[in-house]
Amino acid sequence: MKVSIVMGSISDKEIANKAVKILDKFGIDWETRVISAHRTPFKAIEFAKTAEEKGIEVIIAIAGKAAHLAGVLAGVSTLPIIGIPAKSSTMDGLDSLLSVVQMPKGVPVATVAIDGGENGGLLAVQILSLKYPELREKLKEYKLEMAEEVEKMDKEVLNLK
Amino acid sequence: MKVSIVMGSISDKEIANKAVKILDKFGIDWETRVISAHRTPFKAIEFAKTAEEKGIEVIIAIAGKAAHLAGVLAGVSTLPIIGIPAKSSTMDGLDSLLSVVQMPKGVPVATVAIDGGENGGLLAVQILSLKYPELREKLKEYKLEMAEEVEKMDKEVLNLK
Amino acid sequence: MKVSIVMGSISDKEIANKAVKILDKFGIDWETRVISAHRTPFKAIEFAKTAEEKGIEVIIAIAGKAAHLAGVLAGVSTLPIIGIPAKSSTMDGLDSLLSVVQMPKGVPVATVAIDGGENGGLLAVQILSLKYPELREKLKEYKLEMAEEVEKMDKEVLNLK
Amino acid sequence: MKVSIVMGSISDKEIANKAVKILDKFGIDWETRVISAHRTPFKAIEFAKTAEEKGIEVIIAIAGKAAHLAGVLAGVSTLPIIGIPAKSSTMDGLDSLLSVVQMPKGVPVATVAIDGGENGGLLAVQILSLKYPELREKLKEYKLEMAEEVEKMDKEVLNLK
Amino acid sequence: MKVSIVMGSISDKEIANKAVKILDKFGIDWETRVISAHRTPFKAIEFAKTAEEKGIEVIIAIAGKAAHLAGVLAGVSTLPIIGIPAKSSTMDGLDSLLSVVQMPKGVPVATVAIDGGENGGLLAVQILSLKYPELREKLKEYKLEMAEEVEKMDKEVLNLK
Amino acid sequence: MKVSIVMGSISDKEIANKAVKILDKFGIDWETRVISAHRTPFKAIEFAKTAEEKGIEVIIAIAGKAAHLAGVLAGVSTLPIIGIPAKSSTMDGLDSLLSVVQMPKGVPVATVAIDGGENGGLLAVQILSLKYPELREKLKEYKLEMAEEVEKMDKEVLNLK
Amino acid sequence: MKVSIVMGSISDKEIANKAVKILDKFGIDWETRVISAHRTPFKAIEFAKTAEEKGIEVIIAIAGKAAHLAGVLAGVSTLPIIGIPAKSSTMDGLDSLLSVVQMPKGVPVATVAIDGGENGGLLAVQILSLKYPELREKLKEYKLEMAEEVEKMDKEVLNLK
Amino acid sequence: MKVSIVMGSISDKEIANKAVKILDKFGIDWETRVISAHRTPFKAIEFAKTAEEKGIEVIIAIAGKAAHLAGVLAGVSTLPIIGIPAKSSTMDGLDSLLSVVQMPKGVPVATVAIDGGENGGLLAVQILSLKYPELREKLKEYKLEMAEEVEKMDKEVLNLK
Repeated sequence: MKVSIVMGSISDKEIANKAVKILDKFGIDWETRVISAHRTPFKAIEFAKTAEEKGIEVIIAIAGKAAHLAGVLAGVSTLPIIGIPAKSSTMDGLDSLLSVVQMPKGVPVATVAIDGGENGGLLAVQILSLKYPELREKLKEYKLEMAEEVEKMDKEVLNLK
Repeated sequence: MKVSIVMGSISDKEIANKAVKILDKFGIDWETRVISAHRTPFKAIEFAKTAEEKGIEVIIAIAGKAAHLAGVLAGVSTLPIIGIPAKSSTMDGLDSLLSVVQMPKGVPVATVAIDGGENGGLLAVQILSLKYPELREKLKEYKLEMAEEVEKMDKEVLNLK
Repeated sequence: MKVSIVMGSISDKEIANKAVKILDKFGIDWETRVISAHRTPFKAIEFAKTAEEKGIEVIIAIAGKAAHLAGVLAGVSTLPIIGIPAKSSTMDGLDSLLSVVQMPKGVPVATVAIDGGENGGLLAVQILSLKYPELREKLKEYKLEMAEEVEKMDKEVLNLK
Repeated sequence: MKVSIVMGSISDKEIANKAVKILDKFGIDWETRVISAHRTPFKAIEFAKTAEEKGIEVIIAIAGKAAHLAGVLAGVSTLPIIGIPAKSSTMDGLDSLLSVVQMPKGVPVATVAIDGGENGGLLAVQILSLKYPELREKLKEYKLEMAEEVEKMDKEVLNLK
Repeated sequence: MKVSIVMGSISDKEIANKAVKILDKFGIDWETRVISAHRTPFKAIEFAKTAEEKGIEVIIAIAGKAAHLAGVLAGVSTLPIIGIPAKSSTMDGLDSLLSVVQMPKGVPVATVAIDGGENGGLLAVQILSLKYPELREKLKEYKLEMAEEVEKMDKEVLNLK
Repeated sequence: MKVSIVMGSISDKEIANKAVKILDKFGIDWETRVISAHRTPFKAIEFAKTAEEKGIEVIIAIAGKAAHLAGVLAGVSTLPIIGIPAKSSTMDGLDSLLSVVQMPKGVPVATVAIDGGENGGLLAVQILSLKYPELREKLKEYKLEMAEEVEKMDKEVLNLK
Repeated sequence: MKVSIVMGSISDKEIANKAVKILDKFGIDWETRVISAHRTPFKAIEFAKTAEEKGIEVIIAIAGKAAHLAGVLAGVSTLPIIGIPAKSSTMDGLDSLLSVVQMPKGVPVATVAIDGGENGGLLAVQILSLKYPELREKLKEYKLEMAEEVEKMDKEVLNLK
Repeated sequence: MKVSIVMGSISDKEIANKAVKILDKFGIDWETRVISAHRTPFKAIEFAKTAEEKGIEVIIAIAGKAAHLAGVLAGVSTLPIIGIPAKSSTMDGLDSLLSVVQMPKGVPVATVAIDGGENGGLLAVQILSLKYPELREKLKEYKLEMAEEVEKMDKEVLNLK
C-alpha cells in the first residue's frame, strides 16, 4: 500500500472518502485509519515510525479544531505528510487551518484547502508521480478531463437565461 | 519539583521567565525545559509519561505558531496542562491561540492569554493550592497586593494633567 | 459539593450538561447555577466570595458574546476558574473566546475550547486529582477508554468503502 | 463633576488624556481614575454603585485585552457607560473591541473605536448636551471647526506635487 | 417624539422591533424610518439636519455590510447617534461592526452589539435619563426585573438533570 | 457584445444571473462563460488576450476560495476587470475577498462585495457610461428608482407595530 | 480634469501620491482633494453632485478605519468611484477594506487593495481607456514595461547566492 | 536541476534564500527565478508548461498578497507545487495564506507556513526522497540534528535564572 489516509476521528470519514475516490481513480493502493494524536498518542507515534517500512510512501492526515495529527506524524516520519484541515462546528475551519499549516521551522506539513479531500488525494498522486511515471501521464489526462468538464459547463451557460 | 515549564523553543524563554518569577514568589519548586513536540517527539512523549512519577504536579507548556506542545503532552499525561500561546512573527498570536485552546473532546488544555507568562504561573499556583492550602493564603495576599498597586495608580492619575 | 458550574444564561444549559455528565462519571459532587456577571453582578461577586467556604474547589463558568463571567469570578476568588466560551448567534464564538482567554496579568482563567463542555468538566477533574488521587486513577482509565473507542473506529474504517 | 474617566490600568493614560482634552475644551468637569474590574472588583462595583449620587452623569471606561471594565460598571449602574477598547500587544485590539461591544441583551455599553480617546470624550459631550443645551451649541461650533480644518487641508493638497 | 429608529433597509425591521419594544416599555415616543445612506443620501442628510428641530433627542441607526448610515448621520447631527451593526449573509456581522464602530476622530457613533436591538433601545433610554429623571428610576426597576429573571433561571437549573 | 461575465465554475451561476439582470435592464449586450483559471488556464489566457478584439469592453469575473480568475485575466488584458468574490462552504467569503482584492501593484481588479452580483453589473454599467452617455442617464434614473423604493419602505415602516 | 483623487484626511497623502504618479505617467489631468464624509458631509455631497458637470470622469476615494468616503460619494454620483482602503493604526486595514468593499446592492465601489495607490490610479486609467483609446495603447506598453522589470529581476536572481 | 524556486517579486528573496540553504544542505540542484503570475503571465504559463521537460521535479512558488503564483503554475503543470505565502505590509500574511492554500477541487498546492522558506525547502526534499532514497537517509540525519539542537537548548535553560 502506498498511501495511508489517517483521520483524527471517524467524523472525518466524508473527507477521507473524497481522497479515496481520487486514489482509486489513479489505481493507487491505500488504507484508511482512525488514529488520534491526542487520544491515541502512542499509536500515532508508532504508526509514523513504522509507516515507511510498511511500504507507505505518502501520508494524508485529516483533523479538525486544534488539529495536531499531521504535525505529530511529521515530527516522527520523514515521509511527505499531507494535512487536510477539517471544518468543525465553530471557527469555520480557521482553527484547523492554522493548526495544520503554521508548522514551525524544520517540520513541514503539505497543507491543502479546508475540507479538501480531493486535493489531498491529488497531491499524493502528484508526489507519487515522481517515482511512478505512469501516474504523471494519468495526471495529464486528469487535467484534460477537468478542462473538458469546464468546457461543457461553458457551453451550458453560454448566454444564460 | 512541582511545576515543569516546557518551552517549544528557547525563543519562548522570556515568557517562561515571567512564570518562573511568579512560582518563585510563591515558593514553588520548578524546572524549565526545552522540548519540542515536532523536533523531539519521543522526548516529549517520554517527558509526559514520566512527569507524574518524577513528582511534577502541573505542567506549563509554551509554544507558538501551530503550537502542538501542550496538546501532545495532554494526550499522554493526566496532569493538568497549562498552555501559553506564544505570539510569533505572523498572525499576531491567533494561530498559536487556536492551536492551543481548540482541543478536541477528551483532552483539555487550560489555556491562558497569548504571551501570558504570569497568568500561566498563577494558574499553576491556583491549581496547586487545592492540595497545598498555604498557597491559597498566599494567593489571597497576592490579590491584595495587586489591589494596592491599582489603588496607587488610582491616586497617581486622580485628576490627571 | 466540589464543582460549581455557573452559566451566564439558561441558554448555556446544553454545554453545562456535557460537563455534568463528565463529573457524574467521575463521581464528583456538583451544582449548576445561572448567575450573570452583567444582570446579577452583586450575586456574582457574592457567589465568588463565598464559594471557597461552601466547599467549592473548582468553578466552571460558561458564557457567550462579551463573556465576562469567568473573569469577574476570577477577580474575586482565588479558586481555579475554568472558562468555557459559548458560541452565540454571531461571530462564531470568537468574541466569547477572546473575552474569556485574553485576561490581563494577575487574573488567569483556565480556558477550554468554544462550547467545550466535556473538556471543562475533564479539566476540573484533572485539577481535583491533585488532592484526590483516586481521580488520577480514574483519569488514566478514561484515557484508556478513549483510546479503545478510537481503536474501534480504526477497525471500522479500515479499508473504507 | 460630570464625567468619570476610568482606566483599567495606568497604561491606558494616553487614551484617557485624549478624552480629557475634549472635556476641557467643552468646559466639562471630569475626574480620572484607575479601577480594575479584575484586580479591584469590589472597588469597581462600589464605584459604579455610588457614581450617580456623586453627581457623575456619564462614565467613560477604557480597558484592553479581555476588557470587562465597561461591562462590569454597566451591570451595576444605570448611567450611560462609554467603552473605549484599548489596543494591547497582541490581537491588534480585536480582543478588546469584541469584549467591550458584544454585551449581552439588557446591559449596553456605548462603544467607540479602538484607542478612540477623543471620540469617547465627544460622545460624553453629546450625551450631556441633552441636559445641558449650551453643550449642543458648542458641539455645533466644534463641527464647524473640524470642517474648517478639513477645508485647510483641502487647500493645502490642491494639486499636490 | 424623542427617539428615531432609522433602518438602512426594511430587512432590518426585526432588529428595529426589539428597540421599539424597549422604548414602549419605558413609555418613550419613537418613530421608525427607512432611510439609506447610499440610496437616499440627500434624505439622510436632510433627516439628520432637521432631527433636532423636530424634537428628536436620540437617533438609533441600524445597518449592515458597509454600514455607513450611523456615521453619515453623525457627520451632520450633533445628537447622540446609536449604531446597531446588522449581520448580513456574509462575514458574520464583522463588516457591519467595523464599519459602524471604527469611526474617525471627531465623529463618534455609540455602537452596541451586532443585531443588538434591545441594547440599542436601552442605551437610548439611559441617555434620555440624563434629562428625564423618571427614566432613571425605571431603568433601576428594569435592572431588578432582569436580576429576578436570572434568579428564576438559577432556581430552575439548580442541580440540573 | 460589451460585457463578458466569466464564472470560475457553474456553481457561481446564481451570482452571474444577478449581474445579467442588471445588464438587461440597461440594455447592454453580454455573454456568460465558465472559464477556470486553474482547470482551463490556457483558455483563460486566450480569452483575456482576445477579449478586446471581440468587442468586449468590460469583464466581470466571479470566483470563490483562492479566487484567482479575475487576477489572471487582469494580468493579460488591459480591459477593466471587475472581480466578484463568491462565498464558498468555508471561511464565509473572506478567502475569496482577499484573493480578489489584494492584487499586487500594477494589476488592479475592481472588486465589489462578496456575492455582489448586482453591484458587479452596475459597476460595469458605470464604466461603460464613460463612452456611452445614454447609460449615464439611465443610471440616474436607476438611482431615482432605488430612492423611490426606499421611500416606499419608509412609508411602510412608519410607526412600525 | 478627468480624475479627482479625494482623501478623507491629509494623512492619506502618501497613498494619493502613488495614484498621482500613475496618472502623470499616462498624461491624465487630475486634482487632489481632502474632503471628509464625516467632518465635511455637505461638501462631500456637493462635490459628488457637481463632479460630472466639472468634467470629472472617475473619482478615486481614499479613506481609513470606518471608511465611508467612497460609499457616500457613490450614493450621490453615477460616476465610477474607485475606493482605496487605507491602513490605520489598528486592525491592519481590515476595517477600512470591509467598510469600502462590502457596499450594499445598488451602489458599487470599485475597491482595490489596502493602501493600493498605484492600483487605484491604474484602474482609473483602464476605465478612462474605454473612451480614450490612446490610453489603451499606453496601458499595453505599461504591461510590457512591468514584464521587462520582472525579466530584469529574473536575471538578477538567477542562481541566487 | 531538480527544484525551481519561483518568486513573484524580488522582494521575496529572503524567503527564497532560506529554501536555497536547505536544498544546498541536501545537495539538491536548484534554480531561483522571478516570474510573476500577474505581470508576466505568459512566461509563468510557459515556465510551468516546460518545467517537467527541463528536468524540474518540484516547484516552490513564493508570493504575497493575492498570491496567485503557485495556483497558476499548478493549473498548468502536474508537478508537485509547493506554495509559500509571503507576509506583506498589510493583513499579516492572512491574505497570502488564504490565496495559496484555499485552492479549488482538482488543483492542489502544497502549502507551508507564512514566510516558511525552510519548510518549503524541506518539503521539496521529502517529496524528492520518494525517488532518491539517499535523501531519505539525509532527512533522518537532519531530524536527529534538529533533535540535538533542541537537546542543547534544553540543557541551556535547565533551571533558568
